[in-house]
Amino acid sequence: MDKKMKQEVYDQAKTWILEAGERIREKIDAPRSIETKSNPNDLVTEMDQETEEFFADRIKETYPKHFLLGEEGFGDEIEEMKGTVWIVDPIDGTMNFVHQKRNFAISIGIYHEGIGEIGFIYNVMEDVLYSAQKGQGAFKNDQQLPTLNQSRPLEQSILALNTTWMLPENPHVDHTGMERLVKKLRSTRSYGSAALEFAFVAEGILDGYLTMTLMPWDYAAGAILVQEVGGTVTRADKQELDLLNQTTVLASRVNIHDEIIDGYVDLKK
Amino acid sequence: MDKKMKQEVYDQAKTWILEAGERIREKIDAPRSIETKSNPNDLVTEMDQETEEFFADRIKETYPKHFLLGEEGFGDEIEEMKGTVWIVDPIDGTMNFVHQKRNFAISIGIYHEGIGEIGFIYNVMEDVLYSAQKGQGAFKNDQQLPTLNQSRPLEQSILALNTTWMLPENPHVDHTGMERLVKKLRSTRSYGSAALEFAFVAEGILDGYLTMTLMPWDYAAGAILVQEVGGTVTRADKQELDLLNQTTVLASRVNIHDEIIDGYVDLKK
Repeated sequence: MDKKMKQEVYDQAKTWILEAGERIREKIDAPRSIETKSNPNDLVTEMDQETEEFFADRIKETYPKHFLLGEEGFGDEIEEMKGTVWIVDPIDGTMNFVHQKRNFAISIGIYHEGIGEIGFIYNVMEDVLYSAQKGQGAFKNDQQLPTLNQSRPLEQSILALNTTWMLPENPHVDHTGMERLVKKLRSTRSYGSAALEFAFVAEGILDGYLTMTLMPWDYAAGAILVQEVGGTVTRADKQELDLLNQTTVLASRVNIHDEIIDGYVDLKK
Repeated sequence: MDKKMKQEVYDQAKTWILEAGERIREKIDAPRSIETKSNPNDLVTEMDQETEEFFADRIKETYPKHFLLGEEGFGDEIEEMKGTVWIVDPIDGTMNFVHQKRNFAISIGIYHEGIGEIGFIYNVMEDVLYSAQKGQGAFKNDQQLPTLNQSRPLEQSILALNTTWMLPENPHVDHTGMERLVKKLRSTRSYGSAALEFAFVAEGILDGYLTMTLMPWDYAAGAILVQEVGGTVTRADKQELDLLNQTTVLASRVNIHDEIIDGYVDLKK
């Protein structure tokens, strides 16, 4: 993807994501849209599907050779990261959508020959757009995000961590390591949207985000954003993300990344 | 406190809290204010003290017979809840202030003869003011908050819960009960500000907030807000809050309150 084409795709994707967000806000703010559904889950399912279809239609029309990888069934069957692939999560944080009517995001990562070129995370209700192009830094709206402070030690760090990983019977990670990690850290947070948690790491308001079960559309954009501010994103065993399967993820500042994995993350499989 | 006096105090407190928030925003947004401090902790300490002094000065001048209970040393020595007591937390969520420069609040609860009459929680950086007067409902800015939905069962509930309470060695609560609770719930969240977590319960975007170590200024306003939308706020052993000491707290919708305490909270002391 040459520079001119990349900028064109970036501009186009930005226009679409803002339009898709506007459509979601109109639906969610309409007083009757939730009440008339028997279940608020119906609204999020409808908006999830409508939004993915919105992107599928536009990508196919404008870039017929591009592929779409998504959750809702409007994308392509993708078995390798050849060509240009849009990895779209139309609503990341569906539980927040249902319970909070905020704190969810549209996430779009655009990969070319397996390389993350463009990432967007749109906090829809706050109207805050995080964006990045490979090699050109990351932005929060029009403001460039500074490179991450790499000097703060683990004991002064705040990590996004779900309570689930502290359960002895969770099938992914040894809970005693998570307990030691919680004791070592300054504090933990949990916001309920993987995409936003990546964005907060990129913004430097979280020092890291550790999780055990993400799908490609949950991290495709976030990984690009965090790397563009000098952070590290890998599986929780330090391997590269493969973008095709469910995976563990640690996104964090460089200086605490290996320390967390080596000292506290004991994967069960 | 008669109705007219209560309204006057409410209006006065509202003016002051908005002014105090504006002062904090000016300081935090000034590019040099954090850089010139050797440590961002110095800024929060300074703002904490300046803000409490701001309230102390104004309360003493305008209502010389009122008392102030606060953390920073500008208040009164209070051993019983006689008369009118302003319980002030100038910055609730100091770690968020330092690490995130947002997600903190000014919290003010005004009690008369031990009864919570007026509560304010001001999300400073978002400029969102939660407020309540006893018997008159709770508001988010100018919008009245609806009475809480009391039909959603525990397994569909989202609770604010700190990972600390899942550590086996925490001195407050048996961690195995917390593990069972996490498994029962739909999900947990952690935002790092007790005052905001109360406000989110009042707003209905969290179903409850369970914590083991709050000081009176952390919950004085929040308890009033949650009760004004039909929620229940007690210690985690169902006893009334005493407003003078560190305490456990469960603030939640009525229908899950006793279920959480009876089924999952085994206090160690």
